[in-house]
Amino acid sequence: MSYQEKVTQWYKELQDKICAGLEVEDGQASFLEDNWSRPEGGGGRSRVIQDGAVFEKGGVNFSAVHGSLPDNIKRALGVSKSEFFASGVSIVLHPKNPWVPIIHMNTRFFEIEGETWWFGGGIDLTPIYVEPIHAKSFHSELKSTCDKYDTEYYPEFKKWADDYFFIKHRNETRGVGGIFYDRLNNKEWTELFDFNKEVGETFLKAYLPIVKANRNKEFTDQNRNWQLIRRGRYVEFNLVYDKGTKFGLETNGRIESILMSLPNHASWPYNFQAEEGSAEYETLQKLKKGIDWV
Amino acid sequence: MSYQEKVTQWYKELQDKICAGLEVEDGQASFLEDNWSRPEGGGGRSRVIQDGAVFEKGGVNFSAVHGSLPDNIKRALGVSKSEFFASGVSIVLHPKNPWVPIIHMNTRFFEIEGETWWFGGGIDLTPIYVEPIHAKSFHSELKSTCDKYDTEYYPEFKKWADDYFFIKHRNETRGVGGIFYDRLNNKEWTELFDFNKEVGETFLKAYLPIVKANRNKEFTDQNRNWQLIRRGRYVEFNLVYDKGTKFGLETNGRIESILMSLPNHASWPYNFQAEEGSAEYETLQKLKKGIDWV
Repeated sequence: MSYQEKVTQWYKELQDKICAGLEVEDGQASFLEDNWSRPEGGGGRSRVIQDGAVFEKGGVNFSAVHGSLPDNIKRALGVSKSEFFASGVSIVLHPKNPWVPIIHMNTRFFEIEGETWWFGGGIDLTPIYVEPIHAKSFHSELKSTCDKYDTEYYPEFKKWADDYFFIKHRNETRGVGGIFYDRLNNKEWTELFDFNKEVGETFLKAYLPIVKANRNKEFTDQNRNWQLIRRGRYVEFNLVYDKGTKFGLETNGRIESILMSLPNHASWPYNFQAEEGSAEYETLQKLKKGIDWV
Repeated sequence: MSYQEKVTQWYKELQDKICAGLEVEDGQASFLEDNWSRPEGGGGRSRVIQDGAVFEKGGVNFSAVHGSLPDNIKRALGVSKSEFFASGVSIVLHPKNPWVPIIHMNTRFFEIEGETWWFGGGIDLTPIYVEPIHAKSFHSELKSTCDKYDTEYYPEFKKWADDYFFIKHRNETRGVGGIFYDRLNNKEWTELFDFNKEVGETFLKAYLPIVKANRNKEFTDQNRNWQLIRRGRYVEFNLVYDKGTKFGLETNGRIESILMSLPNHASWPYNFQAEEGSAEYETLQKLKKGIDWV
């Protein structure tokens, strides 16, 4: 099998496994599938869950697309050939209960045919209320996966996530971060593919324990309002800064698959100020770069 | 008085008049004022109304700022000197009742000291349900103001608004448009200032009749849901395309004043499809460029 066949097969398997795991956890709603194809080449399998017991809205999307890169993107990537292939899985889940964090993962393989290839990816956690115990367990799972391959990975990719998942105009991180990496091709293909696979396999292990711990926790109207505000910040990040979203909007991607990352409900009250000492205030103090959660 | 003093005084007056007119119409809520200053020079007077009888959230902001332009902005503007002055009024109102359209106006004066100056502005209407009778009255008011100064203005600025207030990734206009113009300096300063003032004076005349006609119209849950979806599109436009928002986020503007344009509540259900023949479907057919509303 070619690299492209191998990654495509694996990403489809990963999508299946993650959807199955999330459906079991939700226990009420199922993923609905939309298959789509792209006129310029390739397509995808979008799977969306809505109005579940745990998940208010979420998507687990697989895609494998190919075609010819426009000149501006070639320049930005520093490549000379045009024929590209890209495949991956993208996930965003917006839970109902404000005590269950929003989660995001993207894992991808990119190839410029006859020239170069690389792996990229990231997982980050966006709690509505930051609970250090969960941030710690989440980061520990990521670190343990990274450490199996290279002990430099976790510190480097953790910092990269802090810098990437940052809402500059608010001067706050999106959540407690995680790992982010891109253009990884400085080792054998098979080794990097294995690493990429293992990051994908870490998703449920890192996330489900937090879901289980908090899914039935009681919450107040104040908690729900804060959740809607934090989701508004999530929208700000995705529409203003996220590179994948920008790339999708600029290259005629399938809009509803790209914007499945946006929550069903979000809110922007004017000039919300958390009261000093409140749980919301404490969370804001923890939305900073450089915190060692492990 | 210098140009700068004249426009600053006028924009403050305009803010006062518009806030007074909107408060009378709302009849329940008042504008709250936040004064702010910008470390680099100047400041503003933000006025926000929330939870009114008519207006769920809205802002009428005055600002007058000055300082030194960064090189990339100088290049983009094609100017050689750095010292700038910018003043204006920005308005976005999100009504409660889905039958009352969202309204936006921006009117501004910009000067590069010792080099050049120009006026810019725009008003556009975003109905949740497009009603041609209201689109017609709105555009007729704008046309009548434009025609007093130059009969070329309305056709040119109406087309400019269609092109500007366009959500490219959705292939739909934000609403029924209005007028948009920028870098207007091809006539005497006084004449253009008068035109700019009269556009500002047109705001209440063009908008309040529509508010009055629809503010007490009954609405269903379906109407409200569609309103939340259309507000989601409004958020997409403002965060992805709007130049004023981008400029503000990139130049360390006051975030809560810039993002007062975002609604208190918005929604992104996955892949909403309006049923053929429904009122939502009919509205989508009218979110196109080039419709002659007058």
